[in-house]
Amino acid sequence: MNLVPLLDYAAVTVFALTGALVASREQLDIVGFAFLACLTGMGGGSLRDILLDRPIFWIADPVYLIVATAAAVTVFFLAHRLESRWETLTWLDAAALSIAVAAGALIAAEDGQPLPVVVVMGMITGCVGGLARDVVSNEVPLLLRPGQLYVTCAFSGALSLALLHTVGVGAVPAAILCCATCFILRAGAIKRGWELPIYKPRPKSDDH
Amino acid sequence: MNLVPLLDYAAVTVFALTGALVASREQLDIVGFAFLACLTGMGGGSLRDILLDRPIFWIADPVYLIVATAAAVTVFFLAHRLESRWETLTWLDAAALSIAVAAGALIAAEDGQPLPVVVVMGMITGCVGGLARDVVSNEVPLLLRPGQLYVTCAFSGALSLALLHTVGVGAVPAAILCCATCFILRAGAIKRGWELPIYKPRPKSDDH
Amino acid sequence: MNLVPLLDYAAVTVFALTGALVASREQLDIVGFAFLACLTGMGGGSLRDILLDRPIFWIADPVYLIVATAAAVTVFFLAHRLESRWETLTWLDAAALSIAVAAGALIAAEDGQPLPVVVVMGMITGCVGGLARDVVSNEVPLLLRPGQLYVTCAFSGALSLALLHTVGVGAVPAAILCCATCFILRAGAIKRGWELPIYKPRPKSDDH
Repeated sequence: MNLVPLLDYAAVTVFALTGALVASREQLDIVGFAFLACLTGMGGGSLRDILLDRPIFWIADPVYLIVATAAAVTVFFLAHRLESRWETLTWLDAAALSIAVAAGALIAAEDGQPLPVVVVMGMITGCVGGLARDVVSNEVPLLLRPGQLYVTCAFSGALSLALLHTVGVGAVPAAILCCATCFILRAGAIKRGWELPIYKPRPKSDDH
Repeated sequence: MNLVPLLDYAAVTVFALTGALVASREQLDIVGFAFLACLTGMGGGSLRDILLDRPIFWIADPVYLIVATAAAVTVFFLAHRLESRWETLTWLDAAALSIAVAAGALIAAEDGQPLPVVVVMGMITGCVGGLARDVVSNEVPLLLRPGQLYVTCAFSGALSLALLHTVGVGAVPAAILCCATCFILRAGAIKRGWELPIYKPRPKSDDH
Repeated sequence: MNLVPLLDYAAVTVFALTGALVASREQLDIVGFAFLACLTGMGGGSLRDILLDRPIFWIADPVYLIVATAAAVTVFFLAHRLESRWETLTWLDAAALSIAVAAGALIAAEDGQPLPVVVVMGMITGCVGGLARDVVSNEVPLLLRPGQLYVTCAFSGALSLALLHTVGVGAVPAAILCCATCFILRAGAIKRGWELPIYKPRPKSDDH
């Protein structure tokens, strides 16, 4: 069985759950839940497929739409049982990011793209769904919040898969290492406050 | 004569009017009016065509650009005569949504797409132009405002067309029923406050 | 040597600098700088290539990614030496806009597109990268701020190139005139406050 659809299903499902959780914060109705779940779940992979000129994955196989909608319905009826929606959202998003980065980078690598394109496709697949979710619902995008290490995690995961693929490592171990790299860094940022040095010095005449 | 271009022309024109009305609220100059009119009028159909890998409709036939620009110029000179821009905007948007949903769903259906893809293409064609208009002009997207039933109307219209097409109803009656379903639901939401139950229960520790 | 890649390289580099400057205002880490630099530098050209169904320029030649990232790293280490980031950002953005409009319009013209499509492709290539930068970083888009003449500059530059191309002027002089038209108008707006009449009259019952 091919690994890529498996990763895509997992990423769509988990990202869809995060989209539905944001919908619950916005107090939308059930169709609004499904809308944000599909946008979050399928946004990154759709852009990846558009850029690589591949058939859009959820048009080729509409079961993805049903999976994302089922995730939205589940959250609609069960979200009130969560102790902390924000914490659940953060951790689900971290898991979805890790899986989606692997899916995107793997597809580009198997497509024969050069290393920088493989890295960027991993980052796009991982980051764009959550970015669309946050922009549409008027939240500060998670990937721009300070101290989240968000894009860095996606970059590191995608880079590790690209390097492993270049030296001939198989798809399964490369994808697992990519997921692990991305998730461990993200978990460190969430739990331990890991971060890269941020840009600090400000000119005095920052006149705006 | 083919029905799809007719629907596309109607949807582009009416959505362009709403984009220009938002431009008048933002006090833009006439080129800004044309920009928001084109973005709103052509955004949804463009994404539909990109996803279905069809030629982009306004590149194949640039008359759409001229129509949207003409709508923008008209609003620039006549908007001050409106009694209530907001009410006009809401009703024009409801009409444009209904027509665009029919155009998008019909194209996907005639393209031989499976039912869930037909529904989603109707929703994308209907919702994305207005969404881009609202995100770019920093308004809360109409489709996320509570009590608007916005996405639900698009969904119901698209679903009705998809089902009618599946059972062999012709394009014209299917499109009319789709428009009517979408518009009546939207009108009910605007005038009568129709809505679906929204998500209510909040956990106590909603720590953000 | 072909003119289009030259223009694309120049536009990507300068837009990437503006993206990195916005990242410095948002106090992101170095990967965040690279992300915003790539989004700003490559956003407009990517949409142009998607719409015209051409290979995406930075996938066909990943050196663009390296150039944009190098621009981001440069800004990360040198931005604190600027006297006014906002003024630097404005002028770099004006330069990038002018070059990108020429690149986009020229590609569409050489692709044999009709005049309105040539104009719109110039505007999209010029405006979308900066628009994405501003929407993602939650700033009011530069192109919607009053008194910036932003879209008008892009329109005028693209229109001049389209007209010159139609009457048979060569690519190099047409591109130079396009850049000059766009930049001079933009400079006039920034330094002298040039503007078009904006929409003024408001209805009394603007009930929202």
